[in-house]
Amino acid sequence: MKSFRKVLHFNTPNRRNYLNITSLVNEALLESGIQEGMVLVNAMHITASVFINDDESGLHQDFEKWLEKLAPEKPHSQYLHNGYEDNADAHLKRQIMGREVVVAITKGKLDFGPWEQIFYGEFDGMRDKRVLIKIIGY
Amino acid sequence: MKSFRKVLHFNTPNRRNYLNITSLVNEALLESGIQEGMVLVNAMHITASVFINDDESGLHQDFEKWLEKLAPEKPHSQYLHNGYEDNADAHLKRQIMGREVVVAITKGKLDFGPWEQIFYGEFDGMRDKRVLIKIIGY
Amino acid sequence: MKSFRKVLHFNTPNRRNYLNITSLVNEALLESGIQEGMVLVNAMHITASVFINDDESGLHQDFEKWLEKLAPEKPHSQYLHNGYEDNADAHLKRQIMGREVVVAITKGKLDFGPWEQIFYGEFDGMRDKRVLIKIIGY
Repeated sequence: MKSFRKVLHFNTPNRRNYLNITSLVNEALLESGIQEGMVLVNAMHITASVFINDDESGLHQDFEKWLEKLAPEKPHSQYLHNGYEDNADAHLKRQIMGREVVVAITKGKLDFGPWEQIFYGEFDGMRDKRVLIKIIGY
Repeated sequence: MKSFRKVLHFNTPNRRNYLNITSLVNEALLESGIQEGMVLVNAMHITASVFINDDESGLHQDFEKWLEKLAPEKPHSQYLHNGYEDNADAHLKRQIMGREVVVAITKGKLDFGPWEQIFYGEFDGMRDKRVLIKIIGY
Repeated sequence: MKSFRKVLHFNTPNRRNYLNITSLVNEALLESGIQEGMVLVNAMHITASVFINDDESGLHQDFEKWLEKLAPEKPHSQYLHNGYEDNADAHLKRQIMGREVVVAITKGKLDFGPWEQIFYGEFDGMRDKRVLIKIIGY
């Protein structure tokens, strides 16, 4: 049994962004040399998300509008969390989109369906944030 | 350390369906011969879900009504994703219900509480879709 | 390869509660002696959640208000599930908050970002409920 760890760093230009990180996870998998197992990819911060969906810009705009409807950013004062901060909505949005994904590794590759892509969902950006990749297997 | 992989195929009669797949995951676990470890069960498509909840038909009708309230299918034109497609709502519903579950395996069995059952949640059905089962352990 | 299993027991004073269980998961990890791998922490009941977010009381009150908006408890009669029961809302709330978390283990520790804490989210409490910790690795 082997394990492999890698940290990705992001500093997005906007408060909210969706970044396709599939190729970065593939690189880590190649570096690991692991052929069979599982990879965990998770946001290391509680105002961001890692999720799997379609890479389609219209859909990302739909996510933005939809998440703003379910957990609106403003007014900041509607949330008790926002005493000294303004990011309560980011904590809620991340619960809908999820913290992490676990993906099967088969024959040295991400074992994906035809449209699965891994995204980093940032809900409180414009500063240094991290994503953890942990692979276990053999 | 061992691993085991199996793919399940579904073609549901309706656009939205909830199927209890616990017995199919149990079968795969028996085939694998793995006694201790973890099983990942995930939708291989981005308009479907694998989740764990109660097997109760009233609850499934409640899910249907609730998901339609949070991420309504129609009008299709409300979503930018729906240029040539009509399934943006399915991409959103799956974020709420989740892509995957990870279940502990203990003494050769799914290590479940009294009411836990694994479901395939289809949000854009009436065509061939797949679910991946990946087991690692010993 | 090794595995370790532990069950936590809870009986919360209120219908809905958020408990920080990070130290309990850390204890289990120490007991396991596992240095590299993954830990799965999941609710064993379908009206509760295990999730990772910030340990901040204002935020927990925001969760309470927000989940009541998205999946209100009352009137109980709005849900078909509530024939003999009154907890349909708890089944829905748990879908938003999630059943489980998977956390990387690196050098014998939970491999966490600066603010990550593990919570047990109870949505139908005042009775005995359980959380499963399963660790695999070496």
